[in-house]
Amino acid sequence: MDIETFVKQSIGQWRSQRTAHHLTFRHSEEVHSTIDIEWVDPSDPAVVKLCELYEVGPTDIISPFRMTWEGESDWDEDEEERQSMAGTTVLLPVPDPSDPRKGRLLRDQGYAENVAAAGLYHFTDDGTFVLLTAYNRAAAEERIWFVNPNLRFRVSMIKTSEGTGVLTASFASETRSQLHTDDSALTNTN
Amino acid sequence: MDIETFVKQSIGQWRSQRTAHHLTFRHSEEVHSTIDIEWVDPSDPAVVKLCELYEVGPTDIISPFRMTWEGESDWDEDEEERQSMAGTTVLLPVPDPSDPRKGRLLRDQGYAENVAAAGLYHFTDDGTFVLLTAYNRAAAEERIWFVNPNLRFRVSMIKTSEGTGVLTASFASETRSQLHTDDSALTNTN
Repeated sequence: MDIETFVKQSIGQWRSQRTAHHLTFRHSEEVHSTIDIEWVDPSDPAVVKLCELYEVGPTDIISPFRMTWEGESDWDEDEEERQSMAGTTVLLPVPDPSDPRKGRLLRDQGYAENVAAAGLYHFTDDGTFVLLTAYNRAAAEERIWFVNPNLRFRVSMIKTSEGTGVLTASFASETRSQLHTDDSALTNTN
Repeated sequence: MDIETFVKQSIGQWRSQRTAHHLTFRHSEEVHSTIDIEWVDPSDPAVVKLCELYEVGPTDIISPFRMTWEGESDWDEDEEERQSMAGTTVLLPVPDPSDPRKGRLLRDQGYAENVAAAGLYHFTDDGTFVLLTAYNRAAAEERIWFVNPNLRFRVSMIKTSEGTGVLTASFASETRSQLHTDDSALTNTN
């Protein structure tokens, strides 16, 4: 598995059912959301800006894409929290030139903290995508794998920045609800 | 990772918080349970009986263990269902002589169906334990990995026996609540 194939498999609209386990309180929260993943043109201003921010050349990146999500939680009734359940971010894979199974993933805002972030990704031998992102106050680890072309699982956790304590673990089952019509390779199989 | 190390890491009492996603109905169910995993003596009658049932010799097996669980669901108020949330099973790993990273896992009753079952396991290169079990009417796939010695994640899914449709996906975060005092190697580190 490489990042190009992984992004290609991810393109489309997904209905996500995500449950977060707050480990300390043994409390759980459920979020239903719609996630759109679509190609972004490498010349898109958001891509160019992110390349400049991380001093990455246009030939270093591959398969830039945009992820947009909109969800609702069963838990938080607070208006501000509800608004944060919607967002969009551009993601830029920067594969390691010496090993296509790993690299950096840049994005113009993270989901855990609302700032630009660079994560390190790699693929395991069974095709699981693993992403590690360090923030100021926390670190996130995310594992995503496809069960079949229309179902993917995502397990994430938020750790303290020292990496010792795991605060939150979450599981999302994501089913494809539609393909994006601008991707001819995929729509041909529809 | 091999099965002997994996079982050794699993010995103890775990508090499990498990959420099942019923994919068709987009409904979720939460179960809190206590899971005890303990060594079983290879001469235990349950082990001997299971070896006979599967025509396996005593030198073919390694690290037999017992798993006992007791839980309560937020969903099913039915008395019979509630009772099925408690159970115990003996598990017998039978490693592949030519590859210690895979083998069979025999048990005297499965959790998905109440009959003896043999699953196939293997470890991925990042130490994830993957177990595939075929039942009459369904197939189960389970992935278990340790985040740290006191936290493990378990993702399981039930598929139709043809393997095409995924009916249920579930995620458990399991935190160690106590070590078993009969395991000297582990209690020394406590």
